[in-house]
Amino acid sequence: MEAFSDGVFAIAITLLVLEIAVPAGSEADLLGAVLDQWPSYLAYLVSFSTIGAVWLEHTVITEFLARATSVFIRLNLLLLLVVSFLPFPTKLLGEYVGEEAPARVAVTIYGLTLFLASALVSLLWRYAVRERLIRPDIADTDVKMITNRLTPGLAGYVLMIVLGLFLPVVAVLGYLIIAVYIIIPFGALRRQKATA
Amino acid sequence: MEAFSDGVFAIAITLLVLEIAVPAGSEADLLGAVLDQWPSYLAYLVSFSTIGAVWLEHTVITEFLARATSVFIRLNLLLLLVVSFLPFPTKLLGEYVGEEAPARVAVTIYGLTLFLASALVSLLWRYAVRERLIRPDIADTDVKMITNRLTPGLAGYVLMIVLGLFLPVVAVLGYLIIAVYIIIPFGALRRQKATA
Amino acid sequence: MEAFSDGVFAIAITLLVLEIAVPAGSEADLLGAVLDQWPSYLAYLVSFSTIGAVWLEHTVITEFLARATSVFIRLNLLLLLVVSFLPFPTKLLGEYVGEEAPARVAVTIYGLTLFLASALVSLLWRYAVRERLIRPDIADTDVKMITNRLTPGLAGYVLMIVLGLFLPVVAVLGYLIIAVYIIIPFGALRRQKATA
Amino acid sequence: MEAFSDGVFAIAITLLVLEIAVPAGSEADLLGAVLDQWPSYLAYLVSFSTIGAVWLEHTVITEFLARATSVFIRLNLLLLLVVSFLPFPTKLLGEYVGEEAPARVAVTIYGLTLFLASALVSLLWRYAVRERLIRPDIADTDVKMITNRLTPGLAGYVLMIVLGLFLPVVAVLGYLIIAVYIIIPFGALRRQKATA
Repeated sequence: MEAFSDGVFAIAITLLVLEIAVPAGSEADLLGAVLDQWPSYLAYLVSFSTIGAVWLEHTVITEFLARATSVFIRLNLLLLLVVSFLPFPTKLLGEYVGEEAPARVAVTIYGLTLFLASALVSLLWRYAVRERLIRPDIADTDVKMITNRLTPGLAGYVLMIVLGLFLPVVAVLGYLIIAVYIIIPFGALRRQKATA
Repeated sequence: MEAFSDGVFAIAITLLVLEIAVPAGSEADLLGAVLDQWPSYLAYLVSFSTIGAVWLEHTVITEFLARATSVFIRLNLLLLLVVSFLPFPTKLLGEYVGEEAPARVAVTIYGLTLFLASALVSLLWRYAVRERLIRPDIADTDVKMITNRLTPGLAGYVLMIVLGLFLPVVAVLGYLIIAVYIIIPFGALRRQKATA
Repeated sequence: MEAFSDGVFAIAITLLVLEIAVPAGSEADLLGAVLDQWPSYLAYLVSFSTIGAVWLEHTVITEFLARATSVFIRLNLLLLLVVSFLPFPTKLLGEYVGEEAPARVAVTIYGLTLFLASALVSLLWRYAVRERLIRPDIADTDVKMITNRLTPGLAGYVLMIVLGLFLPVVAVLGYLIIAVYIIIPFGALRRQKATA
Repeated sequence: MEAFSDGVFAIAITLLVLEIAVPAGSEADLLGAVLDQWPSYLAYLVSFSTIGAVWLEHTVITEFLARATSVFIRLNLLLLLVVSFLPFPTKLLGEYVGEEAPARVAVTIYGLTLFLASALVSLLWRYAVRERLIRPDIADTDVKMITNRLTPGLAGYVLMIVLGLFLPVVAVLGYLIIAVYIIIPFGALRRQKATA
């Protein structure tokens, strides 16, 4: 299950670049045309960071896992469903974030997808804790720390989805900050384990 | 062979999203345009679930396998051929399921591909059983249970292909139900093994 | 190196399907439009079989390998370069094999790519044998058998490239036969090893 | 982390081919139309070689690594971000390198991406050395040799970026030479280790 999940994460993160189109027929001012596509690069950056963050969280969860039940495997497939879907809202975002009304639609759809992915990671973790699938040698404080780390991300997504209705671009930057915030502490957790 | 097969499954399941196009030139009503594309999302969901189900079945088969013969490897390549082909009928389905006459053609082609994939998984399993490639520590009741689980799926596909000629959208929902039905018992089987 | 190579083979084989386009604007006669695309399906089938065959040969070679030198790794990268390039000639073939004059160009480019891939596999194997990179427990007869198996494929490609200048479609069927011919004996070789 | 990184490298290197379009509507002179696309093949070749080179460097670094810290994992994600972005500048290069003014823009963007990837590999390595993440059984001379090998590549990229403002095509050939130059000594290093 782990190799398959890792594969899906790696493919989804690498497919994102295909959504960035080359500006056609802009021989006269290619630099301007390339720079005009800033929403595509922003969307790429935010989605890459988010998939990276979810992958890091997923890695920590599977590392802590002693065994997997049928429900866990099904929840995991659901998470992969949402993660592999992300290139579509990313494309939507890259195309429409620069414009007025459609930006709100694109950013909301994008935010809901990120929220769903984050909620499923949380669910996966809480389910593993409740069903005692965690390795017995993992300290309770470590388990609690992860639970605590996963919650603010979720709250952040809810906040940003609401904010995105008024200030779409600010919400997108918010999604980037959430992803970076997740990447850092989870990395720190791994360091702790490595030095232990 | 297992790493290669897992890779093909992971890539095929993640490529599906590329078939969902962004509605171009719909600044006026982006939400409406995105919702109008429901056949694409439905096709994505059904294909994702089906590849997920086939992957789960494949995992159980290779886990139970003690060794592989040349014929098994060739049959496996044939299964991968059908699985990696699935994004094409998925695209066809997403494009034409909403319309009258072409929906029947698209749904039938789609159903035949799913049937073929399912038949090849069944064949792979029956071949492994007949050639005694199964690990000796696997109980006969487990072997029989898998054989029994694989058969209704096949019958379901035949039924849905016929139904799809009259009610295309209903058949597509039927394909989704078959996939979900496969995902659940096979997961349960794995849990049993994990607790044993 | 093996995981990376396996990944490239798996991705190249799965990307092939993206080259098959959905016939646009053919609501009136979708079945006819889908059937009219037979060159795309043929190209898909031949390329899938060829990558499958090269992957099988590559698997046997790396299984027999005791260690890899710098030259071997560079030759291997060259082989991966040709294999990942294959989706392009496949697309060319699918687009133009049904027409008169361009079919010859498309089939020749396609054939040259297959020949190059096959030649590099042969080179990889001969280099490994000459530099004594093969595991010492592999019998000389097995080594010779593989050398003998790799040669007719090369000769077959040369023959088909010449034939393709006059009868393009026949040459494509010839490429399919060569791939199937390679898949079968190499599988048999693996079975022998498994039963040993 | 290694499997995920290897996956991203393998996917990015294989996706490059999707950027090569089939010349449409050129039944009259397909060979001419295919040959006219030489910038696409050149871009494919240079990007493939560069990703191959970065992957080889990355392999050597992770092989020499005893453990990974949180900062290392974040730097590694940053490197993967740049590597998976490469298909976009490659497409830009393939489209515009044959023309006058836009070639300079395309080649500069391309060169900056390569420089960034190369700088991140260097940073990754220097960080690993400084933080003593290297396996204790690795000789100091080996560590120094790698440090020395990584530096000229960086200087080469800076030189080529400047040159590309005046002679874009020459700079692209320079990027190819840098990649090939990296592939060879790193392979040699691996051979040394294998024979030791």
